[in-house]
Amino acid sequence: MARLVMKFGGTSVADLDHIRNAARHIKREVDAGHEVAVVVSAMAGTTDQLVAWCEAALKERQTFDAREYDAVVASGEQVTAGLLAIILQDMNVNARSWQGWQLPILTSNAHGSARVLKVDGAELSRRLRDSKEVAVIAGFQGLHKETGRITTLGRGGSDTSAVAVAAAIGADRCDIYTDVDGVYTSDPRVVPHARRLDKIAFEEMLELASLGAKVMQVRSVELGMVHNVRIFVRSSFDRPEDIDPHGNPPGTLICEEEEIVEQQMVTGIAFSRDEAQISIREVEDKPGVAAAIFGPLAEASINVDMIVQNVSADGKTTDLTFTVPAADYQRALDVIVKARSAIGYARLDCATDIAKISVIGIGMRSHAGVAAQAFRALAERAINIRAITTSEIKFSLLIDAAFTELAVRTLHSLYGLDKATP
Amino acid sequence: MARLVMKFGGTSVADLDHIRNAARHIKREVDAGHEVAVVVSAMAGTTDQLVAWCEAALKERQTFDAREYDAVVASGEQVTAGLLAIILQDMNVNARSWQGWQLPILTSNAHGSARVLKVDGAELSRRLRDSKEVAVIAGFQGLHKETGRITTLGRGGSDTSAVAVAAAIGADRCDIYTDVDGVYTSDPRVVPHARRLDKIAFEEMLELASLGAKVMQVRSVELGMVHNVRIFVRSSFDRPEDIDPHGNPPGTLICEEEEIVEQQMVTGIAFSRDEAQISIREVEDKPGVAAAIFGPLAEASINVDMIVQNVSADGKTTDLTFTVPAADYQRALDVIVKARSAIGYARLDCATDIAKISVIGIGMRSHAGVAAQAFRALAERAINIRAITTSEIKFSLLIDAAFTELAVRTLHSLYGLDKATP
Repeated sequence: MARLVMKFGGTSVADLDHIRNAARHIKREVDAGHEVAVVVSAMAGTTDQLVAWCEAALKERQTFDAREYDAVVASGEQVTAGLLAIILQDMNVNARSWQGWQLPILTSNAHGSARVLKVDGAELSRRLRDSKEVAVIAGFQGLHKETGRITTLGRGGSDTSAVAVAAAIGADRCDIYTDVDGVYTSDPRVVPHARRLDKIAFEEMLELASLGAKVMQVRSVELGMVHNVRIFVRSSFDRPEDIDPHGNPPGTLICEEEEIVEQQMVTGIAFSRDEAQISIREVEDKPGVAAAIFGPLAEASINVDMIVQNVSADGKTTDLTFTVPAADYQRALDVIVKARSAIGYARLDCATDIAKISVIGIGMRSHAGVAAQAFRALAERAINIRAITTSEIKFSLLIDAAFTELAVRTLHSLYGLDKATP
Repeated sequence: MARLVMKFGGTSVADLDHIRNAARHIKREVDAGHEVAVVVSAMAGTTDQLVAWCEAALKERQTFDAREYDAVVASGEQVTAGLLAIILQDMNVNARSWQGWQLPILTSNAHGSARVLKVDGAELSRRLRDSKEVAVIAGFQGLHKETGRITTLGRGGSDTSAVAVAAAIGADRCDIYTDVDGVYTSDPRVVPHARRLDKIAFEEMLELASLGAKVMQVRSVELGMVHNVRIFVRSSFDRPEDIDPHGNPPGTLICEEEEIVEQQMVTGIAFSRDEAQISIREVEDKPGVAAAIFGPLAEASINVDMIVQNVSADGKTTDLTFTVPAADYQRALDVIVKARSAIGYARLDCATDIAKISVIGIGMRSHAGVAAQAFRALAERAINIRAITTSEIKFSLLIDAAFTELAVRTLHSLYGLDKATP
């Protein structure tokens, strides 16, 4: 007997047939004797419709009151939770729906992107244990205690709801049912030889998630790492022939490093083409310059990703490169030009047609020369590296966008990630 | 300066354009210096969709858990309330949405048809007075305090929400914005000469509403009568040329009898073709027989409307006639046949092709012979009356359905209700 949290994303509850499919997964676990709490997203498309209505509601103003936006969009998960409870009961599974304010899932007051502060798991635990009642919880939403207002956690927030609930009730595992069957070594659309990982460490998943591997919301992985909630990513739509002889479905377990016996040097290759590069030439090399650059960008809510600054050669000036989301490129440029007198620089070199390639692996910590192999392999294919940043378990390269696929496939093979047959 | 509750039904908030139209009505009242609380229904069609989903969720069971049904369907009003708040803010009107559980609107535990027990008006009143903040309240829904579960009030429940809120905050008037411009002397589709009433007494409206004049939910009128909340029924879609020289829009005020100066003898003619008649012949005329008939019907949740029992001629047996909704006819018949030994009767005479015509007017109390005029007028047109019941301010006649329109128009003219030009 285990205690499980099962989370179903929007495509897994897209309509009544899909919700019924989710209910069958739940019934299977209940029949196996497990205590089950479920977290659901809105039916696919619902949230988009609700957001579109909020946006179309504006004629004069640029933005809407986030409290009202949250009240509107939180309704999607409420509907799924109720319908799933009805379907479970129809299958003779004891079930009850819970909205964020009912548990409650207490959050910060940052409407639209609130952080989970506390989940009261006592009542849930009691019902799971005493009544074997499946709790069907509306994801993505919570309550700000002081104002009594509904909050939402931002896109993908249901993952975070699920992991937070799992931590609160001390679940043995949090199963994320989605439309892919796990986490891959790279994007299979670009790398046909990409392989599903059986296990990945929290730290690695965090890097992958923040690099745009859209399987899990970054915050949910953080939360899993902090509370050591084992997360299993699997498909809602697996077929009987996908199940192995031990009854295990395909999927990827996100867990602590120690649980991964055969640690690879490199776990995955991620890439992003949605970035733009801004290089500031001959910035004065003195304290406060970085603040003069990144302060105004932060004020404009522009998310800066990569930052590269080399040691000054002459002790007077240096070059500083950073990347921003391509969508924010023009705004970022305007900010930097406007702040020119405060920063003090000679000129700007910019590029929008670039890609960032990242190589991730906890194994890098103990293996020297991992990055050096990459530089050599890319050079052999005449791929120029514009900039390099490294961290303990990751290094990222900025290259011309045209070489993205070639570079990703080259590195994927280089680090032995290719599976035997594509 | 007045304190107003403004209620907008589903067709008045059918889409964003309609919600914006509602917002303009609200802004007009706010600009006139009034304190305004608003109650909204779900966007037209939304509740139907949500109910359809709940029904389609069942494969094995016949009925769903009403608590889950309520959680699902209550989402519709929540969306409208949030969107209307956003639109009001966009028009620079200070506004905030409220769901049933947030106020809270406390109700009984009868999910799907809960009764409002208590509305906490203190916080609302404070905000209306101090911040001139328009409260946009999701209608149709409430909270059962002990279970912490969302309840709904049943179809048309938003009217009841509105009147309950009006009572709680001591509103001067409750304006019901709908798709008709008031209460008519009869259904204009059947009686082209039907006239809009400027005023109607609560008691009369109660009879009209329960007879299927679908302008207002019956309970809301009851609540208005108990708490003496003046209710003004008007259209959301009136044109500038509809407004009279004093700035008053067309509409009907539902109020206490005393406020109606020129009381007519008859106020309106209602009719219903959705009934079936069951006559039980030669029932033993002894105590307990009525209970033996209507007890089993009540247990089967069949709503009995008209009941006619004449004084026994021979002191031994009598005939008893009652009507039920046509949809329940077969079930009612089964119940009576099954209870035959308990009741004891000779035979059943039934008819489904019937109509009930009701004549309503507080003036009947002081005018004798009102019903007699009707019997004569119908006889002149060879319309046979199958059964008659009377109450203080109403009498109802059962006739063959084929004569419905003729009978209604005849009585409408008879009591001087026709307007000059159709």
